[in-house]
Amino acid sequence: MAIVPPTRILLGPGPSNVHPRVLRALSMPLIGHLDPAFIALMEETKHLLRATFRTANALTLPISATASAGMEACLVNLLEPGETAIICVNGVFGTRMVDIAERCGASVVLVEAPWGHVIEPEAVERALRDAGQAKVVALVHAETSTGAWQPLEEIARLVRAADALFVVDAVTSLGGCPVLVDQWMIDACYSGTQKCLSGPPGLSPLTFGPRAVEALRRRRSKVQSWYLDLSMIERYWGEERVYHHTAPISMNYALLEALRLIEEEGLEARWARHERHHQALKAGLAAIGIGLHAEKGHQLWTLNSIRIPDGVDDAAVRSALLELFGLEIGGGLGPLKGQVWRLGLMGESSTEANVLLALSALERVLPRCGYALNAGAAVEAAARRLAGA
Amino acid sequence: MAIVPPTRILLGPGPSNVHPRVLRALSMPLIGHLDPAFIALMEETKHLLRATFRTANALTLPISATASAGMEACLVNLLEPGETAIICVNGVFGTRMVDIAERCGASVVLVEAPWGHVIEPEAVERALRDAGQAKVVALVHAETSTGAWQPLEEIARLVRAADALFVVDAVTSLGGCPVLVDQWMIDACYSGTQKCLSGPPGLSPLTFGPRAVEALRRRRSKVQSWYLDLSMIERYWGEERVYHHTAPISMNYALLEALRLIEEEGLEARWARHERHHQALKAGLAAIGIGLHAEKGHQLWTLNSIRIPDGVDDAAVRSALLELFGLEIGGGLGPLKGQVWRLGLMGESSTEANVLLALSALERVLPRCGYALNAGAAVEAAARRLAGA
Repeated sequence: MAIVPPTRILLGPGPSNVHPRVLRALSMPLIGHLDPAFIALMEETKHLLRATFRTANALTLPISATASAGMEACLVNLLEPGETAIICVNGVFGTRMVDIAERCGASVVLVEAPWGHVIEPEAVERALRDAGQAKVVALVHAETSTGAWQPLEEIARLVRAADALFVVDAVTSLGGCPVLVDQWMIDACYSGTQKCLSGPPGLSPLTFGPRAVEALRRRRSKVQSWYLDLSMIERYWGEERVYHHTAPISMNYALLEALRLIEEEGLEARWARHERHHQALKAGLAAIGIGLHAEKGHQLWTLNSIRIPDGVDDAAVRSALLELFGLEIGGGLGPLKGQVWRLGLMGESSTEANVLLALSALERVLPRCGYALNAGAAVEAAARRLAGA
Repeated sequence: MAIVPPTRILLGPGPSNVHPRVLRALSMPLIGHLDPAFIALMEETKHLLRATFRTANALTLPISATASAGMEACLVNLLEPGETAIICVNGVFGTRMVDIAERCGASVVLVEAPWGHVIEPEAVERALRDAGQAKVVALVHAETSTGAWQPLEEIARLVRAADALFVVDAVTSLGGCPVLVDQWMIDACYSGTQKCLSGPPGLSPLTFGPRAVEALRRRRSKVQSWYLDLSMIERYWGEERVYHHTAPISMNYALLEALRLIEEEGLEARWARHERHHQALKAGLAAIGIGLHAEKGHQLWTLNSIRIPDGVDDAAVRSALLELFGLEIGGGLGPLKGQVWRLGLMGESSTEANVLLALSALERVLPRCGYALNAGAAVEAAARRLAGA
């Protein structure tokens, strides 16, 4: 009996839908990780990752584990016991960074904002002033748990001026909205394959700039994780090809194919596509009186955190969408559980068809769950928006 | 331009060939990691992994990274700073365990044997007596770097009597030769998907017995790796389904399909197949005067480390096999570089056809590389052996 999963339209917080070419790449027969053909594939992957991160960083490669491992890789390689890390927390993933930094033995200084709001540069400036010499300032560019879109440039300037390293989580932004690693002076950045890159989950693209690499070279202690020790991984992915682990071949096929698709579409065109579909969805929701959770002016194109109308049963709506339409959306996390739905329009999932489907499905399901609405209004508003009216 | 890798017959140290059903599973469309259909798949995976490990351990699941991460997961979860780990080293992977245990802040006591030899129980007994209370004794069941097959039962009894935890690397044995976790009193065991399980590389099946779980519960400090913190991963894979990371969906499809194929074949039949093809290969090599490196009586069925005849150029032979026949075998690692080839007959790669092909390819290539042989003798000897003569 072969595995045949149900057909789903993935509009949750990830994974997103995957292009048939990526699925075909996954099914290609394996080759060895030291095969010359695989080494050529590694080189092309590094090249296309650099283009996607908008960086010239030599140390740009996929970590052989999911995005959370990319987060851990950045922190365990840059932090040594007793060093100070300023970590910005306005959602689940900032909280996770704190947990990891503490496991590194770092002294963690929090900069907090309400979930759904962004971190203000002034707050980071104060923390930099008060904390003594910080080694790292870390924050989340696109908070998947809240839908908030964090501006980076001003904070980057403050971090650079304080001679700290700027670590950015771009898991839900890379490939869906601008992530300009070099221009924005990001020292270390990581992402995941299963969001706007539209690959399967399993790898974490990562890039380290010259200042971060310098910090690696100057470490006094070994990195606490052997598997995530970037100095070793760098040599495995570099010209020396020093054996470290066995690269997950099929996942690397898939990532490369996904990156080729991004190159073919063009990054700017892809960003514009994500923006257009987000705006249409938002217009449609507004037409039936439903708003987004994240602060105005800071709402992600890639992940919409939708306020659940009062009295509507969170889980009942999600179950109905899945059962009736094969449509997956996500629930809220932590304090936002039961308060928001998370509707991703990422990578291959960001299409006009999916915007219209999501809205018409909600128009069918919400009235049964006690929310009165003007049927057709959401779809109509979104379609007008898509038509440029 | 889609990715089309060259066709290879994978007889290296891994990855091995993958069954078409596993490739098809890889190419199935994605579903969400919280989808009820994915949760059913997780349950079946745990069930079949328990059968493959021959264990009733509740905590049996795949780590979402390659086998080296499984090694790290065992050690970082069981060791706390200042505790003693006795680590047996007779090849690359024991050496790697030492590196990881030291990164845990453990006090490491080495038990060594020459590469290609096995660890004697007396040596472990001495270490247990001299080291004070050891928390962990770790060794490699099937040393992929040497081809040595380590007996476990007697050492297990010593470890249990000393009230330490027995950690076993079964990366190159699970699914290819007996790994009897419960009967042999193994407390923690890990493997990889890309060897005798014949899946793509990328996941690390792992099992923790009651004594290892008890040690987890009693930890005084947090596990130094967030990504590999088994108490968190256990809740993600358990009934609570507490969000940890996003499981690599496609890899999990592939592992499940590979485990179903193993169940259909039957573990005993699979072990017998691996033994038969190893014996035939060995007989064929012996007929042209070529021997194995590992100690007699302790040669793995799954991975043959072949002594390179004097004067023969290691790399030239491997390149010729790859270029002329699409046949991959591995080179030696560390002190065995240039001294051995590593020829794996694992999972789907362990077939009569591959034994005959490998030998006839060697019969073609070796004479060009300066090794005189009686053409046809190797294939003839192997075929006789396969025919049961």
